[in-house]
This record gives sequence, C-alpha cells and structure tokens, in this order.
Amino acid sequence: MGKILILGIDGYIGWPLAIHLSLRGYEVIGVDNLNRRKWVERLGSQSVLPILSPFERLRKFYLKYHKNITFFFGSVTDYQFLRDIFHMVKPDVIVHLAEQPSAPYSMKGQKECIETYTNNVIGTLNVIWAIKEMCPDAHLVKLGTMGVYSYELPIDVPEGDLEVEYKGKKVKLPYPKLGASWYHRSKSCDSINLEFASQLYGLTVTDCHQGIVYGTRIDEMEDDIFFTRYDVDEAFGTVINRFVAQAVVGIPLTLYGKGHQKRGFLPLRDSIQCLRLLIENPPKKGEYRVVNQIENHYDLTEIAEKVVKVGKKFGLKVKIQKLPNPRAEKDEHYYNPTHKILLELGYKPSSQMEKELELMFKDVIIYKARIKKEVILPKIKWK
Amino acid sequence: MGKILILGIDGYIGWPLAIHLSLRGYEVIGVDNLNRRKWVERLGSQSVLPILSPFERLRKFYLKYHKNITFFFGSVTDYQFLRDIFHMVKPDVIVHLAEQPSAPYSMKGQKECIETYTNNVIGTLNVIWAIKEMCPDAHLVKLGTMGVYSYELPIDVPEGDLEVEYKGKKVKLPYPKLGASWYHRSKSCDSINLEFASQLYGLTVTDCHQGIVYGTRIDEMEDDIFFTRYDVDEAFGTVINRFVAQAVVGIPLTLYGKGHQKRGFLPLRDSIQCLRLLIENPPKKGEYRVVNQIENHYDLTEIAEKVVKVGKKFGLKVKIQKLPNPRAEKDEHYYNPTHKILLELGYKPSSQMEKELELMFKDVIIYKARIKKEVILPKIKWK
Repeated sequence: MGKILILGIDGYIGWPLAIHLSLRGYEVIGVDNLNRRKWVERLGSQSVLPILSPFERLRKFYLKYHKNITFFFGSVTDYQFLRDIFHMVKPDVIVHLAEQPSAPYSMKGQKECIETYTNNVIGTLNVIWAIKEMCPDAHLVKLGTMGVYSYELPIDVPEGDLEVEYKGKKVKLPYPKLGASWYHRSKSCDSINLEFASQLYGLTVTDCHQGIVYGTRIDEMEDDIFFTRYDVDEAFGTVINRFVAQAVVGIPLTLYGKGHQKRGFLPLRDSIQCLRLLIENPPKKGEYRVVNQIENHYDLTEIAEKVVKVGKKFGLKVKIQKLPNPRAEKDEHYYNPTHKILLELGYKPSSQMEKELELMFKDVIIYKARIKKEVILPKIKWK
Repeated sequence: MGKILILGIDGYIGWPLAIHLSLRGYEVIGVDNLNRRKWVERLGSQSVLPILSPFERLRKFYLKYHKNITFFFGSVTDYQFLRDIFHMVKPDVIVHLAEQPSAPYSMKGQKECIETYTNNVIGTLNVIWAIKEMCPDAHLVKLGTMGVYSYELPIDVPEGDLEVEYKGKKVKLPYPKLGASWYHRSKSCDSINLEFASQLYGLTVTDCHQGIVYGTRIDEMEDDIFFTRYDVDEAFGTVINRFVAQAVVGIPLTLYGKGHQKRGFLPLRDSIQCLRLLIENPPKKGEYRVVNQIENHYDLTEIAEKVVKVGKKFGLKVKIQKLPNPRAEKDEHYYNPTHKILLELGYKPSSQMEKELELMFKDVIIYKARIKKEVILPKIKWK
C-alpha cells in the first residue's frame, strides 16, 4: 500500500487523515512540532473538543485498532531533522500540512509575519530539498489554500493556468495569486517554489488549494477519544466552526463588513476523502498539478443563515451581527472557482451542509463549557 | 535634499550609488553585513579591482570630499537592528540592495538556497515592517532582476501588468514571474510581498527589475582608491565582467549551451543614473511601481563578439568557447522587454557598449594579476 509521511500530523486535518489512512492499510508516519497547540494556548484559547496528547492518542489508537502510527517530534524548519526523517522513512507520499495556517495570526505583527514565512516558505523549501535528496520519486501533496487567488477579477478561477489572448496571440498565464494576508502570500511563494522544484528536479507535486474546512469529525472517529482539534478563536477558528460555537454559547454569529464574501468550503470528512484521492491518484511523474479542493462556494450570509436554521432545531435562538471588517478584503466580488479534477478522480461530496451542521451542533453542545467566549471576536486588525 | 538609506552599501552597486548621491548633496547612510565579501572569498576568489575596507574607504572619501557617509554594520535579517537604524535615521528614501545576488550561488545546495531565501525574502519583509513602523511615508526603491520574468512566452515583457482578453472579457494579469533559479524565485516572492505592503499599508514602492550590470567605474570614481568591487567568479561575476577578465588572462570567453540567450544589460554608470532618477521621481504616494531597468537587450554571442573586437584593440587574441550549459535555461527564445518608464524620466544611456568595454579593459589589464583563473569556469550545476 505504501508509506505515507504526514508533516503536521497533530493538526486539525493531519490527525483525521492519519487515522483514515492507517485504517485503510497505509503505513503512516507523522511529524509535528506541536506549534499549533502552543499558538492556540497563547491566544488564551483551547480546542473545544478535548484532544489527547499526540503520544497518548497514538497509544490509544494502537490499543484499539492494532495499527501503528509512528510520530516524530520536530520542525520542518530544521533541515537536519527533516532529512534524517526522510532518510529513515523513505516515504512514497508526503502530505505536507505543517504550515502556519492562520491569516489573522500572520497579520498580527512583524514577529508573526516572519514566523509564518519562516515556517511556511523556508519549511516547504526544506521539504523540497529533503525529497530531492532522499526520495526523489515520492509524490508530494502540499496543502495550499483557495485564498491564494485574488478576488479582483470578473473571471472563473482555473485549476492551473488561464488560456488568454494577448495582441492576437494565445498564451497561457497563471491566475494572479495575490491573496489578502501574509499567510496567503506565503502560500503563493510556496507555489512558485513547488512549480520550480517540479520543473527542475522532476519532483511530482500536487499543489492542493483547499477551501475552508468545517466539521467535528470523520466516520472513522467513532470514539470521542480520537477527536481532532476544533478551534473557534479569531485566528485559528475557521468561520463555520466559529459560527457553531457562537450559536452554542448564545452570542451572535459575527459577519465581517457586509458579510457577502464568497468562499469555497468543504466538510472535514470531504477534505480527508479528497486528500486520499489525491494520494491514490498521483499526477504523472515529474508533473506539477494544481487542484482546487472544495465542495462548493457559498456566500457567508447564506452560511450564517444555515447555522441559525440548524441552531433552531437544537432550541437555540441565534442572531446574526455585522462587525466592521477587521480584514482588508472585498465584501462583494465575482467568484466562481473551477473544481473539476477531484470530481473526476471520484470525489463524492458526503452530505448537505445542514446535515453536517447538525452533527457539529451535537458534538459542540456537549463541550460547550470549553468554549472561551472572549477569544472569538476579532482583535487583530489588518491595517 | 533628503536622507537616503542604502541597504547593501558595500556591494557592486551600493558603493558607487553612495558616492554618486553623496557628491550630489544627499545625506547618505549605509547598512551592510559584508556577506558579499565573505561569499566571494569562500569561493576562492576576490574582487579583481582592489577595494578598501568599508571603513577605510569612507574615511578616505571624507578626507577627499568632506562628505560624510555613515555606515552601520549589520544584517537586514536582524529586525531589532534594522528597526533601530530606521528609527535613528528616519530616511526619506530606502534603496534596498541587500540581497544575495547570485543565481548560481542559490543553486549550489540546500544551505545556499535557504540562505538566499532567508536573506532576500525574510530580509525584504523586515524592510517592509521597518518602513511601516518607523517611516511609512518613505519611498522604497527595491532592486529586483529582469530574470524574474519567464522566457517561455512569445510576447513582450511589460512594465507592470498585461491587458489580456479572456473569454471576451478584458482583464489585467501579471506577466509570469517564474525565473530560472532559487535566486530569481526569491525575487518573485519579494514582488508578491512588496505589492501587498503597498496595497495594504500604503507603502510607496518602486520594484526595479534590473538587467545585468557591467563596468568598472562611474564618473565620480576619478580616484582608483574608490573602486567598487569587480567579481569574475562563476557565481558573483556577471557575464560581461567575466568575459573581459577571460579576455585579459587569455582564456576563451565561455558561452553556455548554444549561447543565444537574450538578456537585458546596462553599464554600471547607467544603473546608478537610473537609480537616482527613480529616487528623484518617486511614484505617487502609496503606489507600487514596476520598472524595467535596462539599456537594451542583447544576444550573448553578440556580446562575446564585441568583447573579442575590443580585446583586439588591446592586442589580445580572444577566442570564444561553448560549454555545455550548467544552467537549466532556454538557449533560444523570444525576448523583447518593455523599458519605457526610465526613458520617460530622463534616462540617457551613457555610451555605446564598445566604448564602455574599452574603459573596462583599461582597468582590468592593470589588475590582471588579481584574476584567479580557476574560479571563472562554472562548477555549480542546476540539476
């Protein structure tokens, strides 16, 4: 079946991906520096769903399923460490999720901006070098973000390049990747470097631009002791996860600005399904493949209204409140991203958003007492 | 007249720019970590033209002209240092030349690749933050490279964006900035970050994509003790400077591959003239301006032939030799970069290339004994 090295195995997506792949017979090895735990803690927050220590959950996972997931504690910014891991493991596939994933965090100040670039851009360069030196035939699945794309243009976001006409000539040009935070820009730099690594060193790369993920669990998480983290703070909490927490603790759902930003979304279980499909269907050797990983795109007001509606089923009276936008972003814009590749590979969207929201409410209500209200509202400002 | 802070004042361009501006009445302050001296030394090479220590030449410069140039020893990667300098100086203009400038050096291995990214991308982010925090109204003139642009397309390289047609709609897209080395890619990342800093924080930025510079001196360098460095090694020696050295020591001029790469060039004196024009003619406040800084573009074989011709005047029999290309680049390609902005600002190309070559031969012949033949031929390979 093959060996899969997950960089960032302790994260929101890393852990469920590890479970999912391990239970399907893959040999899973993970690396993490546990920075996410530290960052969230420093913001005065915690995962709403309680999570075990990385070691404890691997032990429990082994006891229950007799599947071994090997964990190495360390950072992708430490090349000696990384190269040694790659040398030992010789992975067939590397899933690189070990990036600083928060736009607001990256905008906080100089320190956080540089931390984001060092972790993400230098980290990804190290991953490129470790593959080149230790396992040049491996397939790198790198997590990008749909937020790399600019929201300025009245045309569809492609998967790959645009074919345009310039002074009567047909040429292929990249869609502008000028996202709205240092975090997003760091992912653009990653893409520039991955394309080069593939072109020059023949690395096989899937640059997976993922939409915003929401949800509390995947099918394989029957047991709550295997929960993945669920953050709802202003920096690491993604919008739908934050909305559900706000609904549960009885504070209004907060939309920024006019609230009509359109974004691509997918449930956690679909993210895992898609990542597996990308692993099982690599591009041609030496190819640099760009994939947009979303279930669909939605208007944020539309989503808030869905959360209100589902909240009602749980007896919750949920209000929506508009806040001055702390970010510098367009409230209204054209948005129609292409997302065909994964559907062609067999991606089956798992359910309707409202059904997923119901499952989320069930989980979050139980752990309501763990939600820190004071960390939800945005304090970090873009300007 | 205003205060100008030159980051990278000890480099090939930094030092003549400092002289030029100081003698025109600007208050010049410089920063350098002297890495370039260290890098060249480590390659077993040295500046062919002898240069004084940074402190000694400032002393001599003061004794001769009674102009004070202040020098701070330190790195743009050290934010505390950089912020303190910006706080003390409060510059009106920052000329940022403090980058690792060699494509081959960046391709040597993991260490050099990461060193390039840390120095260039993290360094430039620090410069952005220091301006934002200490002198938000200052004008940043940042040195990029014409090499950021891809050589893949059959269309002219613009200054700024391309207006193209896509499915009947007119849209503005950036020209692909996918250069052929880690060094070049680091400059693409810089551009991504500068554009964002300008858009978000209102920074006034000139992103100056410069062609390949050649030459031994500028008008203000009457006295040889004020020479700037002149490198001819495989990494830090630019192609025309290397050719002249090869001609002088009697080894063939080495073309890589078929030798028909087309590149933009300009003499050192024009580079300095252009940088002054950019300083004296800033873009609108908060604008991000992209400028292509070249005199013209040439085919490398055409240039080698000019060097042969001028060499003859000095009694030198110069041969041309073709080497397997150590780089991954196209030998033949369409190339026609736009370079109107500087001409509109008053740029007057200083002379014909052959006249400049004559001046170069005169200088280099005197210091022939300082040329290390063994460092000229390429040992660093792209793949």
